[in-house]
Amino acid sequence: MKKRNIALLISYDGTKYNGFQRQKFPSVAVQNILEDRLAKIFGEKIVMIGSGRTDAGVHAFGQVVNFFTSGRIEVEKIPIAASGILPSDIVVRDAWEADENFSALHSAKSKTYIYKIQRGKILNPFTKNFAWHIPYPLDVEKMKRVLKILEGTHDFSSFKAASQTQMNPVRTIFETDIFSEKIFDAEILTIKIHASGFLYHMARNIVAAVVAVGRERLSEKDFKKIFDAKNRKLAPATAPAHGLCLYEVFYQKAA
Amino acid sequence: MKKRNIALLISYDGTKYNGFQRQKFPSVAVQNILEDRLAKIFGEKIVMIGSGRTDAGVHAFGQVVNFFTSGRIEVEKIPIAASGILPSDIVVRDAWEADENFSALHSAKSKTYIYKIQRGKILNPFTKNFAWHIPYPLDVEKMKRVLKILEGTHDFSSFKAASQTQMNPVRTIFETDIFSEKIFDAEILTIKIHASGFLYHMARNIVAAVVAVGRERLSEKDFKKIFDAKNRKLAPATAPAHGLCLYEVFYQKAA
Repeated sequence: MKKRNIALLISYDGTKYNGFQRQKFPSVAVQNILEDRLAKIFGEKIVMIGSGRTDAGVHAFGQVVNFFTSGRIEVEKIPIAASGILPSDIVVRDAWEADENFSALHSAKSKTYIYKIQRGKILNPFTKNFAWHIPYPLDVEKMKRVLKILEGTHDFSSFKAASQTQMNPVRTIFETDIFSEKIFDAEILTIKIHASGFLYHMARNIVAAVVAVGRERLSEKDFKKIFDAKNRKLAPATAPAHGLCLYEVFYQKAA
Repeated sequence: MKKRNIALLISYDGTKYNGFQRQKFPSVAVQNILEDRLAKIFGEKIVMIGSGRTDAGVHAFGQVVNFFTSGRIEVEKIPIAASGILPSDIVVRDAWEADENFSALHSAKSKTYIYKIQRGKILNPFTKNFAWHIPYPLDVEKMKRVLKILEGTHDFSSFKAASQTQMNPVRTIFETDIFSEKIFDAEILTIKIHASGFLYHMARNIVAAVVAVGRERLSEKDFKKIFDAKNRKLAPATAPAHGLCLYEVFYQKAA
């Protein structure tokens, strides 16, 4: 029997995990849990491919994975079956049978990351694992303006990880947004970035620089200079992992 | 020197704690943490009085406590000083010097509890500690109607804890509300109850009965019958603790 290519839409609270990508014992990543537990549903070992890694402490609302299996469970039944065997911080929101050529990694056309900031002097205990608490005033209009500078196709070397020696630092940011909302009575500012792809640490490095502008520790002019310099060393330190969430992965057609 | 009567407004994520009220080792309640850690700020042992207990797993956005101290820290500095020594799941939102007759417990005139329900088939991992996941359809209009029946001054014996032998089961519910909102992309239904006071387990027992009506496992007529019977044994089992949050405590005048 031909193996099916199963795709899953996954949400996870990354607080406890050493990132998405499979780790060697005793380190535990989200992928370890997914592969080991879901093997029970499919009756065989599972090796999945994710749309990309997420770092330790980073969350996902819409991670996508795929894997080939001879397991015979109907796809419609996978989310509920998975909820019975997964810990409550990892859930399968949806499952479908994908084309044999579909790869969660290679077929991805673009991704949206969101980054949450909790404003106000006092930490809100209900959002603390999902938002970076910044107890200082922030000029949101300035933050919006510098974020807009990044839209378009650019060399993002200034916002890559210091260690990264990836060949091509050019990515396209299709859209950025900043919006405020109350979550559990906390004042939450969300930065949203939709891009063709993200260099390692790119989302968190952009957030750190945008926040530096919001705090008036970095002028809008200097933000632009840093971006144009294509030099990671000039930009502020990486923002903490726990504010970041892989929100959505886009594919060219229904997978 | 005369001791000051210090009042604190406290928020906590109750997930890890064995309720609010002080417990004997090795059980840890929120009060243990507050008293033991804040002693460092005030330079002496602290014994606080809370506006009331909350059960294991129940949260608070607006718990109020008070205590007498010779410690000399300025009240304005208490919240920030406390944030340096408390774990991140317990925060002091505000502090003020109260009248010597003020008691967080005895001066309380009324309280608001909120109870959060997460709707939809799949658990949302970002709200799981703060909302009861109900994967079944709910008729919210019916829930609103039966909740309204409880407004006013009534004998709430049908919604007290099975074990409770408290003298007076009469309380006044001033206002109830049910509203929907998106929290971390989850569909959250919040039930709000403002009352002169709550019998032990009253909020969670009311929620359980209202949810039973929403699920059409209990008719509106039978809900009314159960309420009128003043008999705990007829009502549904208590709703889980983790959806409940002590939202606000009201005092007659600024304490």
